[in-house]
Amino acid sequence: MSAGPAPILLPEATPSAMIRTDAATTSAAGIRYGDPDVVLRATSPVIEHQLRHRSVREFLPTPVTEEELRAVVAAASSASTSSNLQAWSVIAVTDPERKRRLSHLAARQKFITQAPLFLVWVADLDRHHRLAERNGRPLDATVYLESTLLGVIDTALAAQNAVVALESLGLGSVFVGAVRNHPAQFAVELGLPPHSVAVFGLAVGHPDPAEDADVKPRLPQSAVLHRETYDAGRADTDLPAYDERLAAYNRAHGLTGAWTERILRRLAGAADLAGRDTLRDSLERRGLPSR
Amino acid sequence: MSAGPAPILLPEATPSAMIRTDAATTSAAGIRYGDPDVVLRATSPVIEHQLRHRSVREFLPTPVTEEELRAVVAAASSASTSSNLQAWSVIAVTDPERKRRLSHLAARQKFITQAPLFLVWVADLDRHHRLAERNGRPLDATVYLESTLLGVIDTALAAQNAVVALESLGLGSVFVGAVRNHPAQFAVELGLPPHSVAVFGLAVGHPDPAEDADVKPRLPQSAVLHRETYDAGRADTDLPAYDERLAAYNRAHGLTGAWTERILRRLAGAADLAGRDTLRDSLERRGLPSR
Repeated sequence: MSAGPAPILLPEATPSAMIRTDAATTSAAGIRYGDPDVVLRATSPVIEHQLRHRSVREFLPTPVTEEELRAVVAAASSASTSSNLQAWSVIAVTDPERKRRLSHLAARQKFITQAPLFLVWVADLDRHHRLAERNGRPLDATVYLESTLLGVIDTALAAQNAVVALESLGLGSVFVGAVRNHPAQFAVELGLPPHSVAVFGLAVGHPDPAEDADVKPRLPQSAVLHRETYDAGRADTDLPAYDERLAAYNRAHGLTGAWTERILRRLAGAADLAGRDTLRDSLERRGLPSR
Repeated sequence: MSAGPAPILLPEATPSAMIRTDAATTSAAGIRYGDPDVVLRATSPVIEHQLRHRSVREFLPTPVTEEELRAVVAAASSASTSSNLQAWSVIAVTDPERKRRLSHLAARQKFITQAPLFLVWVADLDRHHRLAERNGRPLDATVYLESTLLGVIDTALAAQNAVVALESLGLGSVFVGAVRNHPAQFAVELGLPPHSVAVFGLAVGHPDPAEDADVKPRLPQSAVLHRETYDAGRADTDLPAYDERLAAYNRAHGLTGAWTERILRRLAGAADLAGRDTLRDSLERRGLPSR
């Protein structure tokens, strides 16, 4: 990555086709950062694969096969896990009516019903509680926020491995944080036991090639990578250039705004959390009080 | 994966070499599950790479190059992120004295000082607070547990992509949850701003081939993968077989015990959390009150 790249100021009305033409001549890393100057001098086929990730929100009706699902779950299980606790489970939902009901609970996002497979990733400490009960042993550490975070971290590591795996099989996916909008109803619909909570969903299927979306540019490395200690001044230097890059991406795909404005709206206040400001109460009622 | 595999009862004193010989003839998925009957009928070079993951706790002194670090961070940035908030940062620590001090704070684990690179992954909502302050805008949504979880999830997705990437470059790593033992001191040592917290560390380097460790068997898919709804009875059916497999792995590597006993000890009570039962208070003091 170049030390101090100049801001990339694309023309006001960049047509989508122009971005795609650029994509054919720019490195995968250059596309990832929306900055053709970025080239990785160390890389691998696996990293080139990861750089090309994009969220898919329009799917073909082709089902995900049982063999594909098992391969994706094997990859998920291959992620690291804290103390080998493996504090996660995944629910594979393919029933159209159940997907429709889950979609209604998750901001009515249409790709949940459209995708042939909806994976719900669950932070699951109930397996450990069942073991404790069968063995007549106490299991009191799960009441703390630490244990909730441990479950959420284990779940996220597994799910990210699943995404990398499914993309290598030609599938696509999008994460659905809106499963946290109504945790209690999600638990009822999926029969979740206590000491467990749906962390996010993942809509999975074959990407519709007609979808108007590309690899979305990310913050430059100057913003996220610190040396020895955190350096806020250095981290923020290239944010205006990033805003320009994201605005150009959005314009090319019929969207408006840059990064800063979207961030400030998304985190302005409790009203912007779609009900998730009550998540801690929901967790307490689900046996994960997060003290 | 076979529907109902018989428990794998390895001989009492399986020598490490025997496991390694098995490894040469068993599929990567069979090794991942400690069950030679497991074969994936759908797979890819990327998935075969992921199946071979193991934690590395002994490193050679060879440094991690700048080019390798940049490739790993580019992979991390390629992971999904909630609403493109990119609520994470990573601190690359190579200074031996700083690594030694961080190791003292993180259960004195020697691989932190031995590894040439220690990455500290930070859930970072301060970037967004700085933007809000510069723009004279409110940013009140970060006080909720939802926002803490969002930051932790973004951080974990990025870090898992980093692990997959670094392994593709011939490097190895191990996650360090013990950075949560003393969050305040970690923040001071790394100069972390408010609205941020170290979620976990990742010791990175070239694996010492002399380390006595292999791919650790994971829970069978019957335990983690549910169909349409959560099925606790089915999920627990194969746990005794898993306990046997993990006991065999442990015996082969000079360790004792099976999975159940280790789980029950790890989560018995607050005293088993190495100080992390106070994590919520620490987060509150770091400007992430997790309400």
